[in-house]
Amino acid sequence: MRIISSIREMQGLVNGVIRTGKRISLVPTMGALHEGHINLINEGRNRGDVLVVSIFVNPTQFGLSEDFTKYPRDLEGDLSKIEDLGVDIVFAPNLEEIYPEGFQTYVEVKDLQEHLCGHFRPGHFRGVATVVLKLFNIVKPQVALFGEKDYQQLKIIQRMVKDLNLEVEVIGYPIVREKDGLALSSRNVYLLMNERNSASQVSKALREIKRKFDMGCRNTNLMVEFGKKILEETGINDIDYLEICDPETLESKELAGRGDLLAVAVRIKGTRLIDNIRL
Amino acid sequence: MRIISSIREMQGLVNGVIRTGKRISLVPTMGALHEGHINLINEGRNRGDVLVVSIFVNPTQFGLSEDFTKYPRDLEGDLSKIEDLGVDIVFAPNLEEIYPEGFQTYVEVKDLQEHLCGHFRPGHFRGVATVVLKLFNIVKPQVALFGEKDYQQLKIIQRMVKDLNLEVEVIGYPIVREKDGLALSSRNVYLLMNERNSASQVSKALREIKRKFDMGCRNTNLMVEFGKKILEETGINDIDYLEICDPETLESKELAGRGDLLAVAVRIKGTRLIDNIRL
Repeated sequence: MRIISSIREMQGLVNGVIRTGKRISLVPTMGALHEGHINLINEGRNRGDVLVVSIFVNPTQFGLSEDFTKYPRDLEGDLSKIEDLGVDIVFAPNLEEIYPEGFQTYVEVKDLQEHLCGHFRPGHFRGVATVVLKLFNIVKPQVALFGEKDYQQLKIIQRMVKDLNLEVEVIGYPIVREKDGLALSSRNVYLLMNERNSASQVSKALREIKRKFDMGCRNTNLMVEFGKKILEETGINDIDYLEICDPETLESKELAGRGDLLAVAVRIKGTRLIDNIRL
Repeated sequence: MRIISSIREMQGLVNGVIRTGKRISLVPTMGALHEGHINLINEGRNRGDVLVVSIFVNPTQFGLSEDFTKYPRDLEGDLSKIEDLGVDIVFAPNLEEIYPEGFQTYVEVKDLQEHLCGHFRPGHFRGVATVVLKLFNIVKPQVALFGEKDYQQLKIIQRMVKDLNLEVEVIGYPIVREKDGLALSSRNVYLLMNERNSASQVSKALREIKRKFDMGCRNTNLMVEFGKKILEETGINDIDYLEICDPETLESKELAGRGDLLAVAVRIKGTRLIDNIRL
């Protein structure tokens, strides 16, 4: 497992790989790796000849009041977690390498970024799209893997790839959950014991709503109110959104249909958690 | 000379070229080819093994009140002009190929796009950067050539390439002029006889200002006022800007220095003309 921090070195290496006709797969991460990432890495290994994992905590996707500085960083720990997984290259650049002085170019996926988290994290998806585009240009993968927990991110990247004519297959991989249903997230480490208990109710609310849907309910207002009650009962009052929307356009729906996205974002004390399931 | 209109076909072809280790050079144009383009094409032939000329009138870089619909289009004529120049591929996609339904991704070079033409053509450079990024992803050139008449465009594309880690060398090529100094432009065909005479004064004003600079004048206000008088004397009153600015940041300067950019944009009846020289 080779660790590379220089863009020039990374590009030189992948250019050689491409000339041999081999496939590169990329798992882009912000580190603090958990079982969700491990699944992406295992899947990535199956889908390419050369497997690259990038580790970079991207400042441009954090708002000014968000947790960029306290976001968990543990490169050593991350490397040891993945050393036996067949990763060929870890690309771990520093800030100045990715955003040198004078940097001023950003990419935006205009419509998809307006919905769900877009309302609550202005600039977030611009930062995501921009850094992912850079990573694609640096690592030149044929396949890139992203977790479906960040469903909106996944759709935005897929749209960007299509719109900008990138030859990258962007694959979403199912959410990995704790036994009690909590979706794995690097941010879960922020949760204190009692907050951790509340957090498990987030996925429970989604499951309960889906149960209502499966029993025939189609009125999204009713289902959302029902879900909010479950969250509020466990003390989660700070709900950014709980929404049923079209899985392609992410537009909110009044009448739910099979396959729609049910997505939620809550804040438990300072910790923002998101989750989703398909109806 | 092969003419390709499909993105998929173009990418398949260049992927094969890249695996053989050959260099691709690209001259992106909106057609209506003139001697300036011919120079770019000749230079492009020297700099790569496979020479691609793209012809696409890009709607996203035109404002609603601008000349997209009347912009000169003559694919047949363009092809005949370049058939003996050693062009390997003409990439001439249609609108739907480049902007299919649902397209929504745009790239912006935030600071450089604010200056000069940016004030007067909101959205223009966003459209330019986006389509050029797409062309780079489709044609995958190692070298791309642009005319220096569109100096701001050139700097924006160079910055975009750097910021997004594209491995494309973006080369600017000197302005080609008529005998009387008028910078060649596809839009010159809009000019009626008397307007054509006024138009030649645009480059004359630049030369006269430069003469003042060469004689020791450094006060940009003085020089700009002097230049505007020359323009107004020939009946050009509609001046978007006449500015001396830093050639890298494009920021306006109070004191001119050797190598600064002297740039102008005027409107003669409906026709917008730009030009520039270095001091």
